[in-house]
Amino acid sequence: MNTIDLTGVGSDTICAVSTPQGRGGIAVIRVSGPQALEIVQKRWQGKPLADMSTHTVHLGQLTDTTGDVLDQVVLTVYRAPNSFTGEDVVELACHGSTWIQQQAIQTLIDAGCRHAMAGEFTRRAFANGRMDLSQAEAVADVIEAQSRAAHHVAMSQMRGRYSEELKGLREKLLHFVSLIELELDFSEEDVTFADRGEVTALAHEIHDLISRLADSYRDGNAIRNGMPVAIVGQTNAGKSTLLNALLRDDRALVSNIHGTTRDTIEDTVVMNGMLFRFIDTAGIRQATDAVERMGIERTWQAIDKANVVLWIVDVTSADTSMAHDILSHCKGKALIVVLNKTDLDDDFAARSELNDLLPEGTPVVAISAKRDADIEFLRDLIVKNASLPEVDNDAVIVTNARHYQALTHARDAIARAITALNGGLSGDLLDQDIRECLHWLGEITGTVTTDNILAEIFTHFCIGK
Amino acid sequence: MNTIDLTGVGSDTICAVSTPQGRGGIAVIRVSGPQALEIVQKRWQGKPLADMSTHTVHLGQLTDTTGDVLDQVVLTVYRAPNSFTGEDVVELACHGSTWIQQQAIQTLIDAGCRHAMAGEFTRRAFANGRMDLSQAEAVADVIEAQSRAAHHVAMSQMRGRYSEELKGLREKLLHFVSLIELELDFSEEDVTFADRGEVTALAHEIHDLISRLADSYRDGNAIRNGMPVAIVGQTNAGKSTLLNALLRDDRALVSNIHGTTRDTIEDTVVMNGMLFRFIDTAGIRQATDAVERMGIERTWQAIDKANVVLWIVDVTSADTSMAHDILSHCKGKALIVVLNKTDLDDDFAARSELNDLLPEGTPVVAISAKRDADIEFLRDLIVKNASLPEVDNDAVIVTNARHYQALTHARDAIARAITALNGGLSGDLLDQDIRECLHWLGEITGTVTTDNILAEIFTHFCIGK
Repeated sequence: MNTIDLTGVGSDTICAVSTPQGRGGIAVIRVSGPQALEIVQKRWQGKPLADMSTHTVHLGQLTDTTGDVLDQVVLTVYRAPNSFTGEDVVELACHGSTWIQQQAIQTLIDAGCRHAMAGEFTRRAFANGRMDLSQAEAVADVIEAQSRAAHHVAMSQMRGRYSEELKGLREKLLHFVSLIELELDFSEEDVTFADRGEVTALAHEIHDLISRLADSYRDGNAIRNGMPVAIVGQTNAGKSTLLNALLRDDRALVSNIHGTTRDTIEDTVVMNGMLFRFIDTAGIRQATDAVERMGIERTWQAIDKANVVLWIVDVTSADTSMAHDILSHCKGKALIVVLNKTDLDDDFAARSELNDLLPEGTPVVAISAKRDADIEFLRDLIVKNASLPEVDNDAVIVTNARHYQALTHARDAIARAITALNGGLSGDLLDQDIRECLHWLGEITGTVTTDNILAEIFTHFCIGK
Repeated sequence: MNTIDLTGVGSDTICAVSTPQGRGGIAVIRVSGPQALEIVQKRWQGKPLADMSTHTVHLGQLTDTTGDVLDQVVLTVYRAPNSFTGEDVVELACHGSTWIQQQAIQTLIDAGCRHAMAGEFTRRAFANGRMDLSQAEAVADVIEAQSRAAHHVAMSQMRGRYSEELKGLREKLLHFVSLIELELDFSEEDVTFADRGEVTALAHEIHDLISRLADSYRDGNAIRNGMPVAIVGQTNAGKSTLLNALLRDDRALVSNIHGTTRDTIEDTVVMNGMLFRFIDTAGIRQATDAVERMGIERTWQAIDKANVVLWIVDVTSADTSMAHDILSHCKGKALIVVLNKTDLDDDFAARSELNDLLPEGTPVVAISAKRDADIEFLRDLIVKNASLPEVDNDAVIVTNARHYQALTHARDAIARAITALNGGLSGDLLDQDIRECLHWLGEITGTVTTDNILAEIFTHFCIGK
């Protein structure tokens, strides 16, 4: 009974602490599986679990293996299939000492539970049809979300908006298949029943829908992992000081991601409910050696990946010799020019030759990173220019790299079908492309997913969820 | 409505996260107060709270101030007085992201809750008569407990064993008062109604009971704060190496308490379900200056406070010149002689002059702290000689310094009453002593406690409990 069931659809009963690690007022231990009630009953003093209705709460005592009272606990019963996992579930709210949590898990394991693996409760919910795979993945995203935007997208996905969209796509594809197969059934009579015009229109509609989803990943990735903002400028323009000034107010929300070299230091901060990822780059100047050229090359790469570029100009040196190179790399990006060190020279903006170089309408802001002057204004400017994705409407945004990959495969398949349609190819070739398209969408919702993929997905969950 | 009610008996409604800080599968937010249902209803999409029976669980959605869905949550209703606090209580189990936890508290505060202060839920439970003060204090002790013994004692106290004992004492004291007052009522007739023999016997019984409780604090303090074990010996005998060896296996359970000087380094470790507090002392040798004399004086003080003394003897130097001083300070303690550095000289024990100096039956163990040899044997010896308190029987053990102080005052008062009885003093003087005794016991259970004392007690709780 205590062997590990790799399919995740348990014939055994699992348990884990579901609340955050550490000490607190209370902690909740979740038990799920066919024997949940029977096993907990062995360690329970109170009203018999068999007599409890589903969704009711009972005060009683949890005992250890010797029969001594371990803790006074509040027990909640959820009877299958009306539980998170779809199985019988018992939740025990105990006092939140680390000692009690350890002992409670121990006594439940001794009574016949197995300790749950990461994500195993959610995996069982998926296996028992309580949610599809994209919803299960969203559970982890909801727990990880650090900003309003990331939370909103994950919550929408968990609640099934994305699943509905995929379901609609699937229905369109099945309709497509039925039109094509109608044609195939009568192919020996060499008659084209299906209205090729209707089929072509449907194929384009499907292609556009999949494309929109796949394209939303650019926003989705920015929402989940942070909107990339590159900080560029000449050596000693004050890039690092500015980065620190931008991050200062939200120290609690800041994390450091140390790259392999001094050239790739990234920090994230939440502004206006959105996660921003600031990338501090190497100073730009005429490269004199190979190492410097590499550093500058990385800076151009950082700009390529960024949605927003902050170009820091030191007003005291006023060197604009690299302006042309920088501007040519910033095409299509939201560029903000930051005139720094205004504490040393506050008249630069007015007489700057930069004004002639910059494209019409480029925002220019004068600050002193060192004195923390006008940083708040710059933050607002970044938020305003970041072309933030609209997360509050109902449009589905893809945030998951696995889904993005499946969607691009699906888009390729439907594109091939369109080419085939245009070339007047026969229905059986079309049928193959559409089935491949359906396969890739099925990978997202989990209808055609392998155990390996599932194991990979749920490994990244926390224990107890 | 949102002002802070310093009495802790709320006319307002409070909320807090009750689970440990940080991210996890789920987090539980507790709301308590007369408006708990009404306030949560403002942020709830699901079955109306007014229609829910007590102790039932409901799936629904928590909304933010704008009406957007913040999270899918599981809501539990407890109707007054059948809740932890005795008030209406709503518990919300949400997804355990830090973002959701922050936002959920925010939306509840916007809807009319006040954020709970540390220990405020338990304080309300006390104020509403759900538990007495000693039980309320035990809630914090249960959450803090790091060892089986500390857990057992705190759990027994929380479940009311101690309160029962105090209640029994109180009844005996009231009986005493009634006997004395009977005498007072007839005092003008100069008749001694009360049987002085019965009264005296009762006074002695009460004194013994209070004494037993007060005396149990020595064990109780050891259970809660760690059984003190002093490590003494001459300079370079290997005291610090031994300490490290003893602590090594339980690194996870070890905490460092740095004293103000090198003379007082303490570490705790759980052995056999009991917390031990090891005190490393300065090396003992003939003091040549004032500073050294101070260090040695502290060592003698450490021995005085310890239950167990480990005397480390370096077998290579075999200096026993301080033996007499050490032995004279160890009277009444569990002394264990540790012959160290056996890797350098393994024949010392047989030919040692120590054998003649030590009291009959003193355990002697030969080890090598450096090579970690026979440390396990020494651990067992410490556990065996520590005269561990029996925590598994039903005897009440006092662990709380505040209670100990009140008990010693109560003991003094009843002792004065006994002296008065023996001296044939009149009933009204006795009456005063007994009332003082009752007062001190009342401080423990909270019947006569001031707001200042309550504030001090609950400040040490965690938020959300």
